[in-house]
Amino acid sequence: MTKTLERRAKQREDLITAAESAVAAKGLSGLKSRELAAEIGVANGAVFNLVDDMDELILRVGSRTLGRLDAALTAAESDGTTSPAETLVRIAVAYCDFAAENLDLWRALFEHRMAPDKQVPEWAVEEQMNLFRHIYHPLAKCFPNWSADELGITARSLFAAVHGMVSLGLEQKLIAVPVAALRDEIATIVRATIRGLNQDVDS
Amino acid sequence: MTKTLERRAKQREDLITAAESAVAAKGLSGLKSRELAAEIGVANGAVFNLVDDMDELILRVGSRTLGRLDAALTAAESDGTTSPAETLVRIAVAYCDFAAENLDLWRALFEHRMAPDKQVPEWAVEEQMNLFRHIYHPLAKCFPNWSADELGITARSLFAAVHGMVSLGLEQKLIAVPVAALRDEIATIVRATIRGLNQDVDS
Repeated sequence: MTKTLERRAKQREDLITAAESAVAAKGLSGLKSRELAAEIGVANGAVFNLVDDMDELILRVGSRTLGRLDAALTAAESDGTTSPAETLVRIAVAYCDFAAENLDLWRALFEHRMAPDKQVPEWAVEEQMNLFRHIYHPLAKCFPNWSADELGITARSLFAAVHGMVSLGLEQKLIAVPVAALRDEIATIVRATIRGLNQDVDS
Repeated sequence: MTKTLERRAKQREDLITAAESAVAAKGLSGLKSRELAAEIGVANGAVFNLVDDMDELILRVGSRTLGRLDAALTAAESDGTTSPAETLVRIAVAYCDFAAENLDLWRALFEHRMAPDKQVPEWAVEEQMNLFRHIYHPLAKCFPNWSADELGITARSLFAAVHGMVSLGLEQKLIAVPVAALRDEIATIVRATIRGLNQDVDS
């Protein structure tokens, strides 16, 4: 029994690793359960003994991506002892770098839609929300008098604004920007926004 | 001959209108040439006598969306005689409103990808770039000493930041925000960013 459980756990890890490689190489649309089954050496249907469905598999891959993003942001956060505003700039630039270096896995986080009538499970929502602390904490140091609500809203806005710059900048479309230029633009805008928000409080 | 050309022109308009309705109702993935052919009363293959391919059809629908967005931004721009910074705030909020009111047509502008190895045609690129004037002009009034390059880069950054806030805010996902709250957040961030950029120049 234990052996069976162990083998099942290992197959599940193999499946998630195979799916991660497939998304990294071909994007979310390159994920085929049939190919994954062949790759880890199980029968077609057996994939869904290891995970509930494709949604769960994609969320497990996303979980790994978020884990690595978390580590990258943690490194950026503790890199130097500058002001909290400059910490926010570093976090934003680190987000840009992570996206550029993990383009398809990062895109998959945002492109994935659950099957109709299915909710994102609680564990996955929590993992995502948990990352906001990288913005929330330095922001709270910038604005010590703000309420938790104000901080939460502004953290969300800052994330969305930086995410927009990264998404459109890295797109192969209209306003593609070389990564070095994109990093500069993001730093300029985040720095200006924090400075402007600060002035708002003072005035 | 003239009659034939006239009929063809009318069928082409009908086709674009039918495609526009389909995208508005079901999104880009709801666009089926077979259904459109039936709707405008032509044979299946005849759709591609009226437009080159699905890419062109989608770009023609996008052209109409951009035309209406242009009108909405023009109205916002000339609405009142406040400072150029407040004009930028109004433009950003008008963009949010337009997206909320034209959700699927607006999404289609960003979701559409040309077939592999095909470029977006020049006329479509120009239509899109032309809209940046709504940001560029008030920005130039805010920062009269900036170069055209600096203004262009900042206009692009501001657009991407606001677009990110609108995209993630209107998503049915993690950080969905009621439109009224989203408008306030966008106004706060744009106002702060312009103020902060201004201080940057002064200091």
